[in-house]
Amino acid sequence: MKPLFFAFPGNEDLLLKLVAQQPAERGIADFRQFPDGETYVRIDSELKNRQVVIVCTLHQPDTKFLLLHFFSKIAREMGCAKITLISPYLGYMRQDKIFKVGEGLTSTYFAHLVSSCVDELITIDPHLHRIASLNKIYTIPCRAMQAAVHIARWITQHVPNPLLIGPDSESEQWVSDVAIKAKAPFVVLQKIRTGDKEVRVSVPNVQAYAGVTPVLVDDIISTGKSMMETILHLKKINLSAPVCVGIHAVFAPGAYQELLATGASRVVTCNTIPHESNQIDISDLLQVNGKQI
Amino acid sequence: MKPLFFAFPGNEDLLLKLVAQQPAERGIADFRQFPDGETYVRIDSELKNRQVVIVCTLHQPDTKFLLLHFFSKIAREMGCAKITLISPYLGYMRQDKIFKVGEGLTSTYFAHLVSSCVDELITIDPHLHRIASLNKIYTIPCRAMQAAVHIARWITQHVPNPLLIGPDSESEQWVSDVAIKAKAPFVVLQKIRTGDKEVRVSVPNVQAYAGVTPVLVDDIISTGKSMMETILHLKKINLSAPVCVGIHAVFAPGAYQELLATGASRVVTCNTIPHESNQIDISDLLQVNGKQI
Repeated sequence: MKPLFFAFPGNEDLLLKLVAQQPAERGIADFRQFPDGETYVRIDSELKNRQVVIVCTLHQPDTKFLLLHFFSKIAREMGCAKITLISPYLGYMRQDKIFKVGEGLTSTYFAHLVSSCVDELITIDPHLHRIASLNKIYTIPCRAMQAAVHIARWITQHVPNPLLIGPDSESEQWVSDVAIKAKAPFVVLQKIRTGDKEVRVSVPNVQAYAGVTPVLVDDIISTGKSMMETILHLKKINLSAPVCVGIHAVFAPGAYQELLATGASRVVTCNTIPHESNQIDISDLLQVNGKQI
Repeated sequence: MKPLFFAFPGNEDLLLKLVAQQPAERGIADFRQFPDGETYVRIDSELKNRQVVIVCTLHQPDTKFLLLHFFSKIAREMGCAKITLISPYLGYMRQDKIFKVGEGLTSTYFAHLVSSCVDELITIDPHLHRIASLNKIYTIPCRAMQAAVHIARWITQHVPNPLLIGPDSESEQWVSDVAIKAKAPFVVLQKIRTGDKEVRVSVPNVQAYAGVTPVLVDDIISTGKSMMETILHLKKINLSAPVCVGIHAVFAPGAYQELLATGASRVVTCNTIPHESNQIDISDLLQVNGKQI
């Protein structure tokens, strides 16, 4: 029998794409908030011996964990065979190191909690920085797919003469991969801390590229500060208004508007988190029976 | 050494009362939300071999569980001896039965999650309805204190000639206890379902009480619908505007204002959840080294 796919609230558009592209049946469930803010969930499909696929991207994870836990408990009590979580964006990937005594490895804590709910995880470009692989923190099999081909294709189709720019060294893994696939040149900027809050951005040799369209590439756009700083520096050296491409449209309140106001010619993201900037559809990467990487 | 008390965000006023009334030291911690909505927490006090007391009331529990989990993980990693949770209001106490196939016992799921974080729990009047005791669902020692004496005292001091009224049969345990302690008469109304949505409230013998001040008493005021219905029925039989007393000021958005607009002369609650209606201080019930009940 085909796996039963359930969209958690806010993931309905992605679910429609997923079930159109792979063997899948749509499950029926009722999700509600009580007036006091508590979560109600009821699963209306017969799950006995079925594979259950939860579609739930994990931005704003604090408000989602209890639902994930409750739903998984109910699915197991109903006798499902396996629970797969499709979470195109994974939260809590950035606190992967204790910088100060008294902090916690929330990336690991969160990974363990999610691992206690489901049997496998499929995601897109998790923010692996100091952690080499998801399997270092998750205790379940994880498949991390990459949006680079999709982003490279979008750039090739929409941007004439692109120069890919990574706003900081953390972005290098993403920008270099996309650049190679788009057969485009790229540079990665270096942030140089000159004081507690002062950050100077070095722009190496960008002046050498005449007539290019700058394309800033990063995995997560949250506050947008890195991209905004970079835009201001590109202005100073008279490059044209850049296109900003992010994989994950996390966007803190107001950040998207501010990024456009700072001088981005457009802001484009993948549909790993629903947002008006979603232009790059990565749903075909999220195949439940794809091979593990 | 005295236990170290930490107030989670929103519990600062209660913490001040608690540390003034029992052997206690204030712990220092930093709680923040990142711009992307994720939680940051850092414990700044030395916890080695200390008893840690978390003060965190659990209304709106969906947004609080990850912080509770993260904080507890860090405290254990720092070598604390024991973690006590003071949660004057406990969420997820109402879904204690599976009414329809596909629902979950979220009261038990939530109790197990909280039990996995801390070593003991102190709370006030949990909504025990079909569950006989917290220890049926929590796997840690629990102490459930009762606000009845405090409420009875408030009524005696502030309401002339009170007639206590429980808006429905679920409220009976609370209203009868308060009435006995206040040496006041009480009645419990019966809801009679006459159709799918029609509810008729029977008002037995209330007419017999002349010149009383009706005091509606319930444990939780959430939407306030039960109390509002009751107020409308009391109006019909020409009783004076009632005082509404709740233990827990859960209040769905707008419910407090609506309750006043419907005709409550005042709305009074205990300070188990911070709210402008808090008039009854129950902080002395929350003694970490009180005896277990």
